[in-house]
Amino acid sequence: MSRLRIGLLGCGTVGRGFVLLVERERPRIRARFGINLEITGILVRDITKHRPGVDRALLTTSAMEVIDSDCDLVVELVGGVHSAGAYLRRALSLGKPVVTANKSLLASAGSDLLALATAHEATIGFEASVCGCIPILRVLREGLAGESIESITGILNGTCNYVLTRMEDEGLSFDAALAEAQALGFAEADPSLDISGADAEQKIRIVSEIAFGEPVIRARVSGIETLTPEILHSAARRGQRIRLIAESRRTAGGVALEVAPRELPRDHALAGVSAEENGILIHGAAIGEMLLRGKGAGSMPTAVAVLSDVIEAARRSSRANAERWEAVEAVRW
Amino acid sequence: MSRLRIGLLGCGTVGRGFVLLVERERPRIRARFGINLEITGILVRDITKHRPGVDRALLTTSAMEVIDSDCDLVVELVGGVHSAGAYLRRALSLGKPVVTANKSLLASAGSDLLALATAHEATIGFEASVCGCIPILRVLREGLAGESIESITGILNGTCNYVLTRMEDEGLSFDAALAEAQALGFAEADPSLDISGADAEQKIRIVSEIAFGEPVIRARVSGIETLTPEILHSAARRGQRIRLIAESRRTAGGVALEVAPRELPRDHALAGVSAEENGILIHGAAIGEMLLRGKGAGSMPTAVAVLSDVIEAARRSSRANAERWEAVEAVRW
Repeated sequence: MSRLRIGLLGCGTVGRGFVLLVERERPRIRARFGINLEITGILVRDITKHRPGVDRALLTTSAMEVIDSDCDLVVELVGGVHSAGAYLRRALSLGKPVVTANKSLLASAGSDLLALATAHEATIGFEASVCGCIPILRVLREGLAGESIESITGILNGTCNYVLTRMEDEGLSFDAALAEAQALGFAEADPSLDISGADAEQKIRIVSEIAFGEPVIRARVSGIETLTPEILHSAARRGQRIRLIAESRRTAGGVALEVAPRELPRDHALAGVSAEENGILIHGAAIGEMLLRGKGAGSMPTAVAVLSDVIEAARRSSRANAERWEAVEAVRW
Repeated sequence: MSRLRIGLLGCGTVGRGFVLLVERERPRIRARFGINLEITGILVRDITKHRPGVDRALLTTSAMEVIDSDCDLVVELVGGVHSAGAYLRRALSLGKPVVTANKSLLASAGSDLLALATAHEATIGFEASVCGCIPILRVLREGLAGESIESITGILNGTCNYVLTRMEDEGLSFDAALAEAQALGFAEADPSLDISGADAEQKIRIVSEIAFGEPVIRARVSGIETLTPEILHSAARRGQRIRLIAESRRTAGGVALEVAPRELPRDHALAGVSAEENGILIHGAAIGEMLLRGKGAGSMPTAVAVLSDVIEAARRSSRANAERWEAVEAVRW
C-alpha cells in the first residue's frame, strides 16, 4: 500500500468536487490500485468561507505552504494564468508531478511547462483541462496513436451548448439561459470567454496539438453573442439545430481551425449533444468516424478527470513500484 | 530513434490490415514518436496465398521461427485459443511484450497470461480484443480510474448490428444480411459465435473485468437467431429499433451481465449506432452518462487498435528510454 499525499491549490467549484470525490472513492482506490489518497493541504483565498465536506484544518492562504510541504503531488485548480503558472513551475522544479484543469495556462504556456517537467523528471496531467470527464487527450495520444487523424469536430464549450439548448427547447432568453449556466457552475469566471468562442478555441488548440503535433496556421473564431431564440427556432423549423462547433483539420501547410455557430441536421452525431454535454467527432482514414460524448463541464465530472490523472501520476511516478503495479493489475484481472 | 522489430502471427483480415497500416503510418510514427517500425516475420498457414501489399519474403509457416527470432514484440492475430495461447506464453516467457486482438483467448486465459507477463516483466496489449478501434479499455482503466462505474451498456458485436441494420433498413433476409457481413470481413470465422450472443458476452466480460474488477455472478445470454425483418419493422412502426445489447451492472454481490436483443426508442443514444459500429454507454455517479461510438469491426479499425498498443508497448518496454520519450513529447507539444 502506498500513501499519496496531495497538495490541493484551489477549492472552488471543481476543487470542492475533487475533495468530495476523493473522500467517496478512497476505499475503492485503495482496494483496486493500492493507493492511499490523502489531501494534506488546501490553498484558498478566504479561510472563513463555508465549504461543506471540506476539513477546515487543511485550509491555508499560503500556496508555498502547500507546494513546499511533504506532499507527493500538486493539484492545481485555482485557474487563471499568472499565479497558477508560478505555482506549477515551483512544484515541477521540486520534481513533484502536477495535475491541472487549467486550459488557459496550458494554451499559453503548455510547451514551457512540459519542458520544465521533463527537466525535473516530473509529469503534468491535464486531461481535465478539456471536455470535463471525456478522456479525449488519452484517446488521441494512446488509443489512436496508430492512426493519422484527419480532423476533429466538436462541441467543446458546455456553457454555450447549455445556453443554446435552453433557448431552443424552453424559449429562454440568452441572458436567462446564461444566468442558469452560471448558477449551475458550468460557466467560466468570466462568461464572455465562453460566449465569444475563446474557451472553445483554447480547447481545440490543446486537442489539436495532441492529435496532429503540428502548428496551427489559421484560426477563425466567432461566438454565439448574436443568436436569439427566434434564430434557433427558425433553424429548427428547417430541421436544423444550431451549435457552437470547434473544428481543426490537418492541411498541407499545418492545422486550420475554426470555431463558429453552425447548423446541424437533426440526425447529425453532434446534434444530440445537449445542455452541458460535450461531443467530439474524430475522423481518420482507417477508423472512419468516432464519437465521444459526455459531461464537459460541472464540478463532479471534471473532478473525475482530475482524480484519474492523479491515479495515473501515482502509478507512473514511482518507477520502483512498477512491477508491483503490474502485479496488482494482473491479480485483479 | 529506436527500432522496433515486430513478429506478426497471422495474416488474415486484421493481420493484413495491420501490415498495410504499418506501411502507411511508418513515417508519421517515426517523426512523432521516434520509433522505427519493422515487421521482421509473419506466420501464415499457406505461403502461396495471394496477399497484396505483403512482402512474401517475410512469410513462414513456423510460429517458433517468428517468436524466437530477434523480434522485440509479438503481435498475435491468428485467433483461436489453443495455438494462440501457446504462442503468447512462449513470447511472454522470453520477456517479449505481446499485443493481441484475441478476445476468446483473453476471456478463457486472461488472468494466467497477465500473471505470466508480470513474472517475466512483459506487457500484454489487448485493446483490439473488444470494440475495434474504440479504446474502451483505456478509457475505463485510465480515463475513468477516478470514477465508480455503475453500469456499462453497449452494442458490442458489429456483425449482429450489421445484420439488424440491413434487415431493418433494406428489408434483407437474415441469411442475406449475414452473408454480406461475412463478405465484408466483420463476422467471426464461425458466425454462430456472433449470432448467438457468445461474442458479445466475451467482450462484455472483458470490459466488466476492467470496469469493476469484481467477479461476474450472473450471466444471461441470448442471440438474434429468431429475429426477422417483420419483427424489426413491427418495432419500427412503434418508433423502436431492436439491437443486441450487452449490459453489465455492479450489484451488491458482484457483477450481473446480460446479452439480449432489446427495443430502444429511436432517440436512445445507442439507437443511432448502425451497421458495423459499436457503441458503449458508461454510467457512473459523478460522470452521469458517457457514450463512445465507432467502428467495432473490420480490418483497418481493428488494426489501428493493434498498432496503438504496439506503440504503447514500445514506449513502456524501454525504461532506459523513458526520459527520452518525455522529451520527445515535450518538444512535440
